[in-house]
Amino acid sequence: MKVAFCGLGIMGRPMAANLAKAGHEVRVWNRTPKDVEGATRVETPAEAAKDADVLWLCVSDTAAVEQVLFGQNGAAGALRKGMIVADSSTISPKATEQFAARVREKGADYVDAPITGSKIGAENAQLIFMVGGEETTLAKLDSLFKAMGKEVRRMGSTSKGQAAKLAMNLQIALIYEGFAEGITLAKKLGVAPEALVGLIGVTMVKSGVVDYKAPFVLKHDYSPNFPLRLMHKDIKLMLEAAHEAGVKLPGLETVAKIYEEAAKEGKNDQDYAATLDIIERMAGMAGKSAA
Amino acid sequence: MKVAFCGLGIMGRPMAANLAKAGHEVRVWNRTPKDVEGATRVETPAEAAKDADVLWLCVSDTAAVEQVLFGQNGAAGALRKGMIVADSSTISPKATEQFAARVREKGADYVDAPITGSKIGAENAQLIFMVGGEETTLAKLDSLFKAMGKEVRRMGSTSKGQAAKLAMNLQIALIYEGFAEGITLAKKLGVAPEALVGLIGVTMVKSGVVDYKAPFVLKHDYSPNFPLRLMHKDIKLMLEAAHEAGVKLPGLETVAKIYEEAAKEGKNDQDYAATLDIIERMAGMAGKSAA
Repeated sequence: MKVAFCGLGIMGRPMAANLAKAGHEVRVWNRTPKDVEGATRVETPAEAAKDADVLWLCVSDTAAVEQVLFGQNGAAGALRKGMIVADSSTISPKATEQFAARVREKGADYVDAPITGSKIGAENAQLIFMVGGEETTLAKLDSLFKAMGKEVRRMGSTSKGQAAKLAMNLQIALIYEGFAEGITLAKKLGVAPEALVGLIGVTMVKSGVVDYKAPFVLKHDYSPNFPLRLMHKDIKLMLEAAHEAGVKLPGLETVAKIYEEAAKEGKNDQDYAATLDIIERMAGMAGKSAA
Repeated sequence: MKVAFCGLGIMGRPMAANLAKAGHEVRVWNRTPKDVEGATRVETPAEAAKDADVLWLCVSDTAAVEQVLFGQNGAAGALRKGMIVADSSTISPKATEQFAARVREKGADYVDAPITGSKIGAENAQLIFMVGGEETTLAKLDSLFKAMGKEVRRMGSTSKGQAAKLAMNLQIALIYEGFAEGITLAKKLGVAPEALVGLIGVTMVKSGVVDYKAPFVLKHDYSPNFPLRLMHKDIKLMLEAAHEAGVKLPGLETVAKIYEEAAKEGKNDQDYAATLDIIERMAGMAGKSAA
């Protein structure tokens, strides 16, 4: 298929590379120009989207999706009947509904397809897509999903992929907060963090989130895998979506304050795991990151 | 070995039965008399502890441990050199230090050995013990641990088992809160709870906590496996221990308020999973439990 891929960040770049590797004809665009092996670099989203079967987005936020689609030199002019826009960014579910409506006005179709699986999952084509859209549209994207991921989970109609993604990252934020508070309390009461982490691993508290973060946390290594500013952005999206839907999220609101504190302290480019520093500081411990 | 077992609740009763099954000579006592197959029922903790090698406790709270040990007809009079007191209740780490000191004054030894693994784990001798105490003392209890559990993790000296237990239940409370808030947000945004639960199962958000609770939650079945009042009691212990240690736990403090609300609404004898009702209520949804 002819695929236009816009957004070559930590996730987007290996995704585009995997599409090219799978034999698709890929044109790539990024705000700051980047090359992708096997793909053709172009200068604007409009140029990328021209004659493409599918336009795939993986950009940083809601505003960036709008810009790529409807901004200057945006893809909107190239949209036509039969074309599909797929968005793997994590953005507002409500804005997703609006973007989808505008795309459909041009005769094209729209699928929200945010991802989970980290940088390594993107590189190894092991991503999980949580998607919103029509079954028939999704079926047409099957070979592309397979080239980039290991699983596609349909969450419902348009925007439900984004809704699910927010609900997933909400859980990641609270699982990690529980770990940060638990390890801080245990440490202050005299338990070695290594012993607690070992214990977690053999109990029902075990999760992929802590399995992945704990080895870094034990070394106070907060080099970014999932940068704090991105998780903070997602938390704001969750609170915004919750507010619009009339949902109150007391746990998340509390965690949001910790992220605000961490951002103020200049931890935006560290991993979100660095929020542990804030909890340790509040316990009178010297939260010191290696970064 | 001659074992006195005090406390025959959901966990204690199968634990005592497994000790008897393994060939130990077990005398059992409970506040409201209960029989255990293969064991001898006695009328007081003092009578249970007389001539015993080990006194094992599994009672409801700190006050109950004090009562069994040092109250009227308590075990204290029977304590002597060479005897070991092992406490599988979940109680205050600070009180544990004090109880251990008083037990040692009588020449006996003390181990805190709280458990995780649920009722089923207790029945199938698959418990995990997180213990505080001397290595040499723990070694003497080896055959008893093996009769009741699958794993013994030493967390440090006296009271460190209790400290670790609090840190573990703190994480359970926050993992579940994340699940409750995530599923409520997703539902309000139009995602089917079953689809979200399926998604969780294939991602890093997956945990034993949610694996275990989700099937019940999807049916709004809050019949108690871990009653809300017990988790609430543990949360108060965590906050008390945190306060004493100068640790601030913002996430847990927020969750504590939800448990207070749930307790006020008469949910004490439902499973702690019923806190989802409170989150759903706040979202204007009719949180309705089957109980």
